[in-house]
Amino acid sequence: MLIVMNSKATKSNIDNILDFLTKKNLKADISDDENKVVIRVKGKNSLDTREIELFAGVSDVIKISSRFLQSTRTYKPEDTIIDVKGVKFGGDNVGLIAGPCAVESYEQLDNIACALSQVGIKVLRGGTFKPRTSPYAFQGLGEEGLKILREVGDKYGMAVISEMTDASQIELFEEYVDIIQVGARNMHNYHLLKVLSKSRKPIVLKRGLASTVDELLMSAEYLLLGGNNQVILCERGIRTFEKATRNTLDLGCIPVIKNLSHLPIIVDPSHSTGLRMAVVPMGRAAIMAGCDGLIIEVHNSPETALCDGAQSLYIEQYKQLYEDIKQIAPVIGKKIN
Amino acid sequence: MLIVMNSKATKSNIDNILDFLTKKNLKADISDDENKVVIRVKGKNSLDTREIELFAGVSDVIKISSRFLQSTRTYKPEDTIIDVKGVKFGGDNVGLIAGPCAVESYEQLDNIACALSQVGIKVLRGGTFKPRTSPYAFQGLGEEGLKILREVGDKYGMAVISEMTDASQIELFEEYVDIIQVGARNMHNYHLLKVLSKSRKPIVLKRGLASTVDELLMSAEYLLLGGNNQVILCERGIRTFEKATRNTLDLGCIPVIKNLSHLPIIVDPSHSTGLRMAVVPMGRAAIMAGCDGLIIEVHNSPETALCDGAQSLYIEQYKQLYEDIKQIAPVIGKKIN
Amino acid sequence: MLIVMNSKATKSNIDNILDFLTKKNLKADISDDENKVVIRVKGKNSLDTREIELFAGVSDVIKISSRFLQSTRTYKPEDTIIDVKGVKFGGDNVGLIAGPCAVESYEQLDNIACALSQVGIKVLRGGTFKPRTSPYAFQGLGEEGLKILREVGDKYGMAVISEMTDASQIELFEEYVDIIQVGARNMHNYHLLKVLSKSRKPIVLKRGLASTVDELLMSAEYLLLGGNNQVILCERGIRTFEKATRNTLDLGCIPVIKNLSHLPIIVDPSHSTGLRMAVVPMGRAAIMAGCDGLIIEVHNSPETALCDGAQSLYIEQYKQLYEDIKQIAPVIGKKIN
Amino acid sequence: MLIVMNSKATKSNIDNILDFLTKKNLKADISDDENKVVIRVKGKNSLDTREIELFAGVSDVIKISSRFLQSTRTYKPEDTIIDVKGVKFGGDNVGLIAGPCAVESYEQLDNIACALSQVGIKVLRGGTFKPRTSPYAFQGLGEEGLKILREVGDKYGMAVISEMTDASQIELFEEYVDIIQVGARNMHNYHLLKVLSKSRKPIVLKRGLASTVDELLMSAEYLLLGGNNQVILCERGIRTFEKATRNTLDLGCIPVIKNLSHLPIIVDPSHSTGLRMAVVPMGRAAIMAGCDGLIIEVHNSPETALCDGAQSLYIEQYKQLYEDIKQIAPVIGKKIN
Repeated sequence: MLIVMNSKATKSNIDNILDFLTKKNLKADISDDENKVVIRVKGKNSLDTREIELFAGVSDVIKISSRFLQSTRTYKPEDTIIDVKGVKFGGDNVGLIAGPCAVESYEQLDNIACALSQVGIKVLRGGTFKPRTSPYAFQGLGEEGLKILREVGDKYGMAVISEMTDASQIELFEEYVDIIQVGARNMHNYHLLKVLSKSRKPIVLKRGLASTVDELLMSAEYLLLGGNNQVILCERGIRTFEKATRNTLDLGCIPVIKNLSHLPIIVDPSHSTGLRMAVVPMGRAAIMAGCDGLIIEVHNSPETALCDGAQSLYIEQYKQLYEDIKQIAPVIGKKIN
Repeated sequence: MLIVMNSKATKSNIDNILDFLTKKNLKADISDDENKVVIRVKGKNSLDTREIELFAGVSDVIKISSRFLQSTRTYKPEDTIIDVKGVKFGGDNVGLIAGPCAVESYEQLDNIACALSQVGIKVLRGGTFKPRTSPYAFQGLGEEGLKILREVGDKYGMAVISEMTDASQIELFEEYVDIIQVGARNMHNYHLLKVLSKSRKPIVLKRGLASTVDELLMSAEYLLLGGNNQVILCERGIRTFEKATRNTLDLGCIPVIKNLSHLPIIVDPSHSTGLRMAVVPMGRAAIMAGCDGLIIEVHNSPETALCDGAQSLYIEQYKQLYEDIKQIAPVIGKKIN
Repeated sequence: MLIVMNSKATKSNIDNILDFLTKKNLKADISDDENKVVIRVKGKNSLDTREIELFAGVSDVIKISSRFLQSTRTYKPEDTIIDVKGVKFGGDNVGLIAGPCAVESYEQLDNIACALSQVGIKVLRGGTFKPRTSPYAFQGLGEEGLKILREVGDKYGMAVISEMTDASQIELFEEYVDIIQVGARNMHNYHLLKVLSKSRKPIVLKRGLASTVDELLMSAEYLLLGGNNQVILCERGIRTFEKATRNTLDLGCIPVIKNLSHLPIIVDPSHSTGLRMAVVPMGRAAIMAGCDGLIIEVHNSPETALCDGAQSLYIEQYKQLYEDIKQIAPVIGKKIN
Repeated sequence: MLIVMNSKATKSNIDNILDFLTKKNLKADISDDENKVVIRVKGKNSLDTREIELFAGVSDVIKISSRFLQSTRTYKPEDTIIDVKGVKFGGDNVGLIAGPCAVESYEQLDNIACALSQVGIKVLRGGTFKPRTSPYAFQGLGEEGLKILREVGDKYGMAVISEMTDASQIELFEEYVDIIQVGARNMHNYHLLKVLSKSRKPIVLKRGLASTVDELLMSAEYLLLGGNNQVILCERGIRTFEKATRNTLDLGCIPVIKNLSHLPIIVDPSHSTGLRMAVVPMGRAAIMAGCDGLIIEVHNSPETALCDGAQSLYIEQYKQLYEDIKQIAPVIGKKIN
C-alpha cells in the first residue's frame, strides 16, 4: 500500500500515520514523488484504504493488490476445460445448453428434449425451484421437476442442469443433476457457495444483476477455495437505466474475463434481453465475442409456457442459430462439440 | 389488460389475438381509440405483456395492475407501527438502532453498548454471520457472536438485531435476537423469506443493491403473505455509476414508499456511503426526508475494527447526531422514542 | 389516455377529474374494468400522466402513445440506406469507418489513411475539435485538422468524417467533410441538432452515455423533422456501475432499434470498451448482432498517439477484423461494400 | 506513476517498459514491493495508464494524481461565497431560488414572483430557451421570455436566473440575467463552458445525468481556468435503474463535494424527483445534508403549466418548506439570507 501525502502535509501528519501503522504491526518506508511524500507500507495487510484517507495530510491511498487468486491466469495460465458427459466448456470448444425456463410436465419436457436432441444439443436445462420476484407467481415443481428432468435427460442421453436456490437442496441436486446452476440472485449467497464448493458437480455461476466482473470472480473464488474447480461463469445481463431490453447484456466482459481468468464463460441471451427477437442475434454476437458456450431457453409452445414464454425460442429458431454458430465459430478457431 | 393495435393492423391480425385469448379462456371486447383498435381483456389474468407484443399488428400492450397487495396503503391505509421492547418504528416515531458492524468480542461490544446506552439508544446491532465478497475476509463469530450480543443487550436492557444469512440459522436467531435482519444480498433469497414469514420476530428487510422500490415491496409481500406482518423496510444505497460514495443513497425513495405502503422504512447511512464524514449529514437528511428510523454503525475504536472501521462513527459523533435529530424531527411532527 | 380509478374511488373523485378535463377542452367517456372505473380521454392531448396521478382516487394513468414519428418503421417500413460516395450504410450493407482518434499532423494521417486504404476502407475518421473532460487535455487541431483530413481523404479517394462540437462550426464542416458526427455528449444539444437538420450532409448521431433508445430516436427526430433524413445512429456504450470496460457496450439495443426504426445503426467498439484487446471481439460481435457498420480507431503508432492510444488498433489487427467480417457477415445475409 | 509488475515478469519485460519510457523522455527508478518489481515514473506526465497495462508482465498501473486544480480545497481551503444582489451562496448561507419551469407570459410570471417575493424569495428562476427531448414539445419563449423575466425581476427587486443552451446566446444573457444556468445536458458542452468562462456573471452549473462528481468538478475547472470564479454547483439527480422517481437524487455527493471543493453546491429537488409530493421532503433533506441552497419549481397554477406542472409546488407548499428550513438550518449553523 502506498500513502501519498499532499503538498502541505506536515511532519506531524506523517508521524501520526507512522504511529498508526506501528500499532498495527506494519512496517513502512518513506520516499518523495513529485515533491510529495509517499509512505510505502511493506508486506501484506488488510488495511482498508478509507481508514488511511481520513488522516490529515493524506492526498491518496493506493493499494497494490496481490491477486494471488485461484481464478486468475496468474495462478493458472492455461484455459480450464470442463467436460460434462463429453460436452466441453472452455478452450476452443463451444458448449451449448438449451431447454425450457421451467419443467412443467413430463410431456412438455419430453417434447422439447426430443426436438433439441435432434438438433444436436446434449445438455438440457429446466428450472425446478424457481426464484420469482412475486410470491404469487409459479414457483416450480421442486423435487418432482428434478425427477422428470433426470428421466428425460437419460431417455435422450443428455446431461441435465437445474438451478439450486438453497443450501438445503444439496442432496437432491447431487442425486438428480449433472451441473448445478447458481442463479444471479444467489451469486452473493456465500452460504450456498460454501456448500457447493464441497460438491464435485460442475457449477454454472451466473453473474449478479449488479455485480462487477471482480465480484463474479470473487464468488468463483469461494467455490475454488473450497475445492470445487469445475466452475463455468455465466454472463446474463446487468441492470442499467435502459429498459428497452430486460437487462443490458454486457458482452464486453467476455474479452476482459478471458484475459483475467482461466475459467470458461458462457452467455445467457434469453434472460438478459427478455425478448425473443433479440435472442438469436445476441447468441451469435456472444460467440463472436469469444465466449465458451450459450444457455438458451427453448420451448415447444412458447404461447402456453408457464414462465418466460415471451423470451423462449421456437425450435426452428434455435436450429437456425445452431447452424449459424457452426459457420461462424471456426472463424475464431472454435467449434461446437 | 389493453391491447392497442397499430393503424395498419388487419382484421386477421385482430382475429389471431382473439383466438389466442380464447384458447387461454379469456374474454375480450373491442373498441376504438384515436382511430386505433383496442382489445380489452376482461378479468384477472397472468398474461405476460411480452407474449402479446409479439403478435403482428400490435402497437402497445398495457397492464392494469390490480395492486391488491398487503404492503400497500390500498390494503391498509394507516401506518403500521412496530414495537420492539418499547421502541417504535412507524407513525410519528423515529426508532434508532446502533452498534458495531461485527461483534468482535464481549469487551468490544460491552464498551460500545455501554456508551450507546448512555446516549439513549435502546436497540443494539452487531453482525455475527458476515456475508463478505472475499472468502479471505473475516466471516464473523457465528453463534458465539449471537450469545455475546444477547448477553450484552440484556445487561443494558437493549433489544438486539443481527443479520441472518441462511434459512438453516432460524433456530439460533429465534433464540438470541429481537429483530432479524435480511441483508441487501438476500432480499431476493425467497427461500429465506419464506422461512422468516413463519417467524413472529420483526424483520428489517434491506433493499438490494440493484432492486427497485417495487421489488423491495414484493419481497416484503413474501413475508406478509406467510403471516409475518412486522416488516421494517430499509434503504441502504443502490449501485450506480458514481463511485465517490460506496453506493448511492436513494433518499427519494422515502416519500415514494411512504405514499405507496403502510410499512415503516428506516435508513442505513453507514453502508450506503461507506464514508464516516458522510454518515452524520446523511443521517440528518434521511430523517428530514421522512424516514422512520436509522441503523448506524458505531465503534469505540474504529481504527482497530475488524470490519468497516472507516465508515463507523465515533461515539461523540453519534451523540451529536442524536442531539440534532432531537431538534429537527419535531419540525415534521416526529420524535425519537 | 386511460385513467384507472382505484376500487374505493368516489363519485366526487371522478367528477373532479372530469371537470379538470373539461377545463382543458378534452372529452372523455367512462367504463368499468375489473370492477374499477376507467376514464378514457378522447383524441390527442399533451397531458402529463403525473398531473392526473395526483388526483384523489386515481390508481393508474396509461398513455397510448401515437408514435407517428418519422424515425419509426410505422412511418417508413423499409430500411433507409445511406450512400456516402459509394459506401452504403443500411439494408444488407456493412459500412466501415476507421482512422485515428484525433488528426495530429499530415504525416500521421497520411500514414494511417494509406494503410487503411490498402485494407479496403473508404471512409476515414479523424477528430479535429475534441471535447475533453479536462481543460488541460489536448483539444484538437481545429480548422487546420479539417483541412488535413480533407486533403488526405482526397489523396486516397476516401470520404471523411469528423465530429462537430458547436453550431458555429457548421460552415467549416459543410466545406470540409462528407459526414458530420454528433458526439455522445451532444446528443441532447438540441440547438446543434436543429442547425444540422438544415444541412444535407449525412449525420452520424452517437447515443449519449446515459440516453435510452427512445431518446436516441427522439434526437434523430430533431434531424428528420428539420429535413435531414440521412441519419446514421451509433451505439457507443452506456455508463453503468461496471468499470472493467470504460462503458458498457449495449449490443442488445441493435435488434431493438432495427425492429423499431428504419434508420441504419453502426457501432463504435473503441470508445465503448476503451481497451484495445476488446475492440476486435466486440467489432465481430456487433456485426453478428445485426448492425450496419463499425467506426473504429486505428493508429499507425498507438504508443505515441496524442489521444486514446490505448484503445487504438494496430493496422494488422484491423486487417484481421476486416477479414473476419468478410467471412461472418454473409451468414446473416450482409456484406462489406 | 507506478508500474507494478507481476511475479512472473522477466527482465526483458521490464526492459521493454524502460525503453518505452525513455522514448517518451521519462525517467524511472525500480524497487521491490511484496516480492514484485515496481517501476516508478518520475515527474509529471500525460501517460494513459492503459498504454502501460498492455505491456507483458504488467500487473497494475497506478497514477498519483497531482490534483492542482482550482476547484479543490488544496488550491483554496476556505469556502467560496457568491453574492448575487445580496443573496449569498456558500459559507453558512442558504440561498434560495424559485420560480416556474418556463416563463409562459408576463401575467403568469408576475403572479408567481409576487407570491414568492412575499414569502421572502429574492432570486427568481424561469426557463426561456427550453431543451426538450421531443422536438414536438414547447420550446420556450426565447428572448421575449428573457425580457419578461428581467422586467418582473426588477418590479419585485429580485435577481433572475435562466438557462443558456447555446454559446450564441451569450449577449442576450449578459444583458438580461443575473445568474446564467448551464443545464445538465450541457455540463459537457465545453464550447459553451469556454464562452461562459469569459463572462463575469455567476454560473449555476448543473451536474449531468450520467456525470460523476469528478467530472462535475472538471467542468467547473473549465470555468475557473477561463477566469470566471463565481461557480455554483448544482446536484439535480443522476440516471439509475430506479424509475420510481424521475432520477435518483444523490444527496451523498454533498458531503463529498464540500470536502473536496470550496465551491458552493445547491440542490434541485424538482427535476430530480419529478414528483410534487417528493419536493418538500427532499428539499429539507438536502439542507440537512449540508448544501448551500435550493432551486425549486413553483407555479401559481400547476394544473395549467405548459411544462413540468406535475412537479411544481403550490405557493402554500413552498411557504411551508421555507418555514421548515428557517427552523432546521440553524441546527447545523446555517441560515437563509
